[in-house]
Amino acid sequence: MSLTTPAPASSLDSFVLAPGFQSAATSCGLKPSGNLDLGLVWSDAPCSAAGVFTTNRVQAAPVHVCRETLASAASRVRGVLYNSGCANAVTGERGLADARRMRALGASAIGAAEDELLVLSTGVIGRFLDLEKLSRGVATLQTPAALRTPGDAARAIMTTDTVAKIANASCTLGNREVHLAGFAKGAGMIHPNMATMLSVITTDARVEPARLDRALRAAVEQSFNRISVDGDMSTNDTVLLLASGASGARVDDAGEEAFTRALTAVCGSLARQVARDGEGATRLVELRITGAATESQAHRVGDSIACSPLVKTAIHGNDPNWGRILAAAGYSGEAIEPDKVRLWFGERDDVQLLDRGLPIAFDAARASALLAQDPAIVHLDLGLGRAGAVVWTCDFSAEYVRINADYTT
Amino acid sequence: MSLTTPAPASSLDSFVLAPGFQSAATSCGLKPSGNLDLGLVWSDAPCSAAGVFTTNRVQAAPVHVCRETLASAASRVRGVLYNSGCANAVTGERGLADARRMRALGASAIGAAEDELLVLSTGVIGRFLDLEKLSRGVATLQTPAALRTPGDAARAIMTTDTVAKIANASCTLGNREVHLAGFAKGAGMIHPNMATMLSVITTDARVEPARLDRALRAAVEQSFNRISVDGDMSTNDTVLLLASGASGARVDDAGEEAFTRALTAVCGSLARQVARDGEGATRLVELRITGAATESQAHRVGDSIACSPLVKTAIHGNDPNWGRILAAAGYSGEAIEPDKVRLWFGERDDVQLLDRGLPIAFDAARASALLAQDPAIVHLDLGLGRAGAVVWTCDFSAEYVRINADYTT
Repeated sequence: MSLTTPAPASSLDSFVLAPGFQSAATSCGLKPSGNLDLGLVWSDAPCSAAGVFTTNRVQAAPVHVCRETLASAASRVRGVLYNSGCANAVTGERGLADARRMRALGASAIGAAEDELLVLSTGVIGRFLDLEKLSRGVATLQTPAALRTPGDAARAIMTTDTVAKIANASCTLGNREVHLAGFAKGAGMIHPNMATMLSVITTDARVEPARLDRALRAAVEQSFNRISVDGDMSTNDTVLLLASGASGARVDDAGEEAFTRALTAVCGSLARQVARDGEGATRLVELRITGAATESQAHRVGDSIACSPLVKTAIHGNDPNWGRILAAAGYSGEAIEPDKVRLWFGERDDVQLLDRGLPIAFDAARASALLAQDPAIVHLDLGLGRAGAVVWTCDFSAEYVRINADYTT
Repeated sequence: MSLTTPAPASSLDSFVLAPGFQSAATSCGLKPSGNLDLGLVWSDAPCSAAGVFTTNRVQAAPVHVCRETLASAASRVRGVLYNSGCANAVTGERGLADARRMRALGASAIGAAEDELLVLSTGVIGRFLDLEKLSRGVATLQTPAALRTPGDAARAIMTTDTVAKIANASCTLGNREVHLAGFAKGAGMIHPNMATMLSVITTDARVEPARLDRALRAAVEQSFNRISVDGDMSTNDTVLLLASGASGARVDDAGEEAFTRALTAVCGSLARQVARDGEGATRLVELRITGAATESQAHRVGDSIACSPLVKTAIHGNDPNWGRILAAAGYSGEAIEPDKVRLWFGERDDVQLLDRGLPIAFDAARASALLAQDPAIVHLDLGLGRAGAVVWTCDFSAEYVRINADYTT
């Protein structure tokens, strides 16, 4: 079993989807900017598919339609049609009808049955999809004018993202190499502990839907559910995984762990890229929580710190104001014991700031320099047990406010 | 029974504490700026006292010492000594000893027993109190050089506050008028649903400690627990209420409701002033949640909206991006039904944006103008029942980030 550590490709040009998948992208006018806003990823053969969705009580129409599709056709999904520029959320019955119409348009484009296509939408909430533009766009996807490189497919899903997020990994099952490759979008309205943002992941492994679903849930729990940009949870969050089986390698009981590990690597890389590209962010922040009684405790404490505007602004200012970190741990709802915690900054615990709940003298300039690194690494040991979790967030800059103070206008 | 609606005094000069209380303030050097940083409010006669404290697991030394004082002497408290510039939080045993020493210094200054004084500290976390400066400051409080107007006492508790927060009210018990007057500080690290920030409230009513405690908890629940600036909860949050009895009017079963209502008015005014002065804020935001199944549901939905950076930045930009409001309600953890909600902006529901979950055409310029008002008023009806709650927050500006990116440095 081998595992390729996924890393953002130095260039989108070299990015490829897993064998068996094709893509097309175009601009159909849903984004006033004229940027790419429509993409299609598909396989000529039926795929197994799995999805993880937002837990927000307000769920966008495409989320409902994806659930329908997976309920009826998880073993014969042919692809995903997605648009950016309009979220088709809070659009009622008309929105549902529009999402089903979008699904039919995409299915028809690749010769699939209507219930064999998944759909995703992202952008402004509360506006209806412009089906005329969408329809013209889908027609374009079928022509030579469409952009066929997977890098463009990754770009077509972006909204306020400043860079496309792509990742790939491989693992060996028996004697065969299996590939995983995917992309994601997300920069705002991102909160941990639920499926987050949009992501499409492809693999050429052959996996039955129930196993694919289990692997995806395990991977998402360790990746997309461990990041936070602003504590806001979207109405559209969806992670989709399609398995073409083109490698001929079947994921069975023996191979599931290796496959899940490779999938977790892809999801983890995408999740960190999303956190790093948080709206207005200048660096990734990695919160390592150790010494917890349970992993869930570590996760909740990390989440509380990751969501604290005071912590995130302090990190933005390279300010070793560790009191805010401790205060955020203190209101996490977990029964931490303040006189047991220890705190460090840096990849190798380079500077210690707290020892068993007490401040210790530290080199402020060095601590500040560690916070300025990308990623900035914060390690909090709770002194309660042996469990841990890593949570990722980003710093919080004035640019976040500028980006969000007039997004619709 | 009459009730004077409290409003911020047009000038601090006219602010007075309740009869029976005196105050003194000075600058002892805990703030590098040289601004007022030490204050004392006291009564020559013993008072009843009650307090509500932060629920953060990390609690500052003065919080522990206040609890001690109230446990042993809630019926004979003489006053409150408070400092700004240093929170005396996360300071371990030494911090506790320092807080007790601070208490002793203050008690000695007014001829009280050590356990008859309450203490509050606010400022940077994780630094030890400079007892030498504090001691010299307390000595100054006893001299004519100290500032004796209650407005100065209100100023001495400020940290990043841009204005002092003061409020007063009165009510009639039997034939006697009873006065309530207090001040508060708080601009950052403010979160609802627990005692928040620091506040000292005085009254000349005669109230036994148990009743005073009940009235304070009821008032705080409707005021300080209904505001959020940044979702961060402080380690030092405390609201203290001292009753001198100087009016001779006793609060009994018959009068408790009127007294609690007047106290709630004072706390509510202070809480709204704190939210309005949120770090970087340009306006108060009033979230009216109606049609909830329970008051607690309304409160949680309002809290979720009040904490959303996306909602707060949109309001800052006068951007009627109501999708963010609905999304925040959707992830509140409450079982809202998206197809039942209705949403309006404005004091008199002037512009409706959603009707039974669906967007309705609205005048964007008018909606934007309503969000630009101070306070900006948002009314969300959940369509589930007859309960409601009002929650206050502020808009979120780039200035918040500038203020918080280098607070200690």
